[in-house]
Amino acid sequence: MAESGEVVIVFDTTLRDGEQAARVNLNTGEKVQVARQLERLKVDVIEAGFPASSPGDFDAVRVVAAEVRSPVIAGLARTKERDIITAGEALRDAARARIHTFIATSPIHMEYKLKMTGSEVLKEVESAVRLARGITSDVEFSAEDASRSDINFLVDVFTLAIESGASTINIPDTVGYAMPLEFGEFCGTIINRVNKPGVVWSVHCHNDLGLGVANSLSAVRAGARQVECTINGLGERAGNASMEEIVMSLRTRTDHFGADTRIDTTKFYSTSKLVSNLTGVLVQPNKAVVGINAFAHEAGIHQHGMLCNRATYEIMTPESVGAPGTDLHLGKHSGRHAFNEKVENLGYNLTKEQSERAFEYFKVLCDKKKEVSDGDIEAFITDRVIDAIPEKNYELKDFAVTVASGGKPTASITLVHLGREITEASIGNGPVDAAYRAIRKILSFEPELLEFHIRATSELADAVGEAHVILRYKDVRAQGRGASTDIIEATIRAYVEAVNRLYHTAAAREVKI
Amino acid sequence: MAESGEVVIVFDTTLRDGEQAARVNLNTGEKVQVARQLERLKVDVIEAGFPASSPGDFDAVRVVAAEVRSPVIAGLARTKERDIITAGEALRDAARARIHTFIATSPIHMEYKLKMTGSEVLKEVESAVRLARGITSDVEFSAEDASRSDINFLVDVFTLAIESGASTINIPDTVGYAMPLEFGEFCGTIINRVNKPGVVWSVHCHNDLGLGVANSLSAVRAGARQVECTINGLGERAGNASMEEIVMSLRTRTDHFGADTRIDTTKFYSTSKLVSNLTGVLVQPNKAVVGINAFAHEAGIHQHGMLCNRATYEIMTPESVGAPGTDLHLGKHSGRHAFNEKVENLGYNLTKEQSERAFEYFKVLCDKKKEVSDGDIEAFITDRVIDAIPEKNYELKDFAVTVASGGKPTASITLVHLGREITEASIGNGPVDAAYRAIRKILSFEPELLEFHIRATSELADAVGEAHVILRYKDVRAQGRGASTDIIEATIRAYVEAVNRLYHTAAAREVKI
Repeated sequence: MAESGEVVIVFDTTLRDGEQAARVNLNTGEKVQVARQLERLKVDVIEAGFPASSPGDFDAVRVVAAEVRSPVIAGLARTKERDIITAGEALRDAARARIHTFIATSPIHMEYKLKMTGSEVLKEVESAVRLARGITSDVEFSAEDASRSDINFLVDVFTLAIESGASTINIPDTVGYAMPLEFGEFCGTIINRVNKPGVVWSVHCHNDLGLGVANSLSAVRAGARQVECTINGLGERAGNASMEEIVMSLRTRTDHFGADTRIDTTKFYSTSKLVSNLTGVLVQPNKAVVGINAFAHEAGIHQHGMLCNRATYEIMTPESVGAPGTDLHLGKHSGRHAFNEKVENLGYNLTKEQSERAFEYFKVLCDKKKEVSDGDIEAFITDRVIDAIPEKNYELKDFAVTVASGGKPTASITLVHLGREITEASIGNGPVDAAYRAIRKILSFEPELLEFHIRATSELADAVGEAHVILRYKDVRAQGRGASTDIIEATIRAYVEAVNRLYHTAAAREVKI
Repeated sequence: MAESGEVVIVFDTTLRDGEQAARVNLNTGEKVQVARQLERLKVDVIEAGFPASSPGDFDAVRVVAAEVRSPVIAGLARTKERDIITAGEALRDAARARIHTFIATSPIHMEYKLKMTGSEVLKEVESAVRLARGITSDVEFSAEDASRSDINFLVDVFTLAIESGASTINIPDTVGYAMPLEFGEFCGTIINRVNKPGVVWSVHCHNDLGLGVANSLSAVRAGARQVECTINGLGERAGNASMEEIVMSLRTRTDHFGADTRIDTTKFYSTSKLVSNLTGVLVQPNKAVVGINAFAHEAGIHQHGMLCNRATYEIMTPESVGAPGTDLHLGKHSGRHAFNEKVENLGYNLTKEQSERAFEYFKVLCDKKKEVSDGDIEAFITDRVIDAIPEKNYELKDFAVTVASGGKPTASITLVHLGREITEASIGNGPVDAAYRAIRKILSFEPELLEFHIRATSELADAVGEAHVILRYKDVRAQGRGASTDIIEATIRAYVEAVNRLYHTAAAREVKI
């Protein structure tokens, strides 16, 4: 952090707006992993979920609030009484709890979605903030779709929210419509007209036109002192402003902003990888700050310049964001201490028992491969350590898959279910299809395959491949991940894991499979 | 395009700055595919390469200039005489040729990289622009690292460049250091002080802090009328400003800018996919405009709002950027006409012979799968139609791969080399490793595996999987792609393809394998 200058509060909403993105599905254990890493990153506020939206969200907020103690933990709530009370309950064990309540203020949202008049909205604001304030002293109010709202109305809404007890006021660009110059002026005008010293002004910018970061920074120039953002820019549609880009802009250009954050930027790379591994959402190579190419200088002219003086083409160092220079690979002679340190550097916060299990898998992998890369370790921890659920309905016992030119891809699979071995075989269009058909013959129900990814990225063909599967049955969704040096085994493991998690989630939601 | 207002020229540098990115490697045929699609997108200027940098770049610029007739074709050149003459030669057949010459102007670049004084740089600018102007009437001059240059020096440099004959002046933020507010002011000040009506002012912004698009737009507000950008934001390090984001910002907010481009935005989605498929560089799901989640509304509240009125959460429609609403799948009853139309909509511009070959593969695929998705078609066109090189040193004849719990993954491969069948077998850590070891036993040389990706993303386990391999031998690099419903077959095909292309490229560069 800069020695002088003001502090910008970093409010992370990866677990709320990020988790709300299409195809993202984290369970409570995974959310706790992310929250612990956000704590190590020194995020000020973690929005852990929207407790009234589902029992899973309630549970996640409750557990994160109980286990992650340094940051403020926030829960989202509409202005409805039930939402606010539910948020308060979920946050009961937090060291510092924030209720974040919101209502839309734009003409189009009020008319078509809320079907409310402006004065009805004002009444909601007052009652919701007062109710929240009775539960916790830290209340944030957001005017959804603020950037398309009438500025005079917003001034009234915000003034009322503050007078009712809100200490943080958030101005969202919900649909990513704002342009940096106008958004800065808009925020500046609101801040001046409301004119309440002591209030923290916040922004929450979406990225539909690629301007989420620029709009957030423009608001900081205009006086905002909280930015709502996510790791990797995860979030609804094109996502939210990306934390790593906002924070590195402030850090690199403190001269321009006169403000900085408390973030430990050396944790960015590992946090980005952790979120990508757990959500299955890839980070593109040319992603700023955390993409694998972000510090790659390719052109001859650039390489020449870099050799003369790094500053010719480098405005921040890879070390400052924790990007691996030369990846330190572990191998069969690496001990428990080196392994644990590596795991922690990769952003995982394992319990003693998980750490033990991870080390066992590591040793197995060392027998297969000379060098174990960071990606290998991340893959098997995500698959075999964190994912673990207490009881499994189906356990993978054996598999055999054959593909050959001229013949049909063939798979046989043996699963153990209620103590009994069941084997089925199938042909298919490719080995994965054959294996999945064999598994479906074994199952007593028919889940729908919503998503299927496999990936292996490495300079070595024996890299650990990862598979990611999302299944749905009767509106219950579950994801499964598999990792193995054998990509076919990884895809089989992912499917079986998803089946087991489907049982688990269905049981928690009292849905019968 | 807006009915009134000024025009912003779109200068695409996907084939130059984009292709220069780490891990990107396009051959001339692939570059022509991209250039033809950029023409359909109605890009004004295509920077096709840096002719003096390599024989491959020279060849690509020459062929694109000869075959793509509507846009201006630009070639990059340092201020060196040889660079400019080489660029002129490469552009000889262009309908409209632009030479784009550049030299660095920042103190750090001049001192450490160029080892030149300001007055030496000025001399270079004058002689280079004059020389270029003798070759073509369309000359662009760029001051590399302009955003970190002294503004008084820049005014002198640009004034001299214009007086020497440059008609477009480019202000690059080479290292992605600028902030939107200051960059707009910086450009505005330069434009006013140089004060030469008739000159087109251009910007070229990198994305190191996630601000490439915002900086470009800020410059447009200040009077810039050309933006240099790339598809998917491809480019050195964190890439260049992304064309689709700049153009959709101008289109969506013409009210704010009073300027718009000539781009046919409905071609964005297919262009993005084409570039991603050919380069192997993934687009993240939350990428603005062209990511697969860019128009996905996931939260219950958002879905409710969308049902009431799409404008509650949507500032542009998926149709406006050509994003597929419901993917129209083809199947065994689809005829040649429907297939050709689909291929064209996907951004491919095939010759008659290629189109014939593509249709044959399509029919084979229809026998394997009930529904053939867009992704399937893209994968096999990229693998089996565009990639094709005239002669193959090794041809895949047979393969058989077996994986089973308890046993070692095993592969046997038969390749035909100079009319002779050679079969080898190997075990490995997984099926890919086993297959690659078997292939390496067959080859008479040992290429290094630089990159290895596989991916399959679908809601169906029988999706076409794609593999992407980059091999290196004696400083010659070649990529290979493979696609198949059998992911193992795809990985084998990709490796063999890369081997063949390595021979081809090595022969062109007179390197002996």
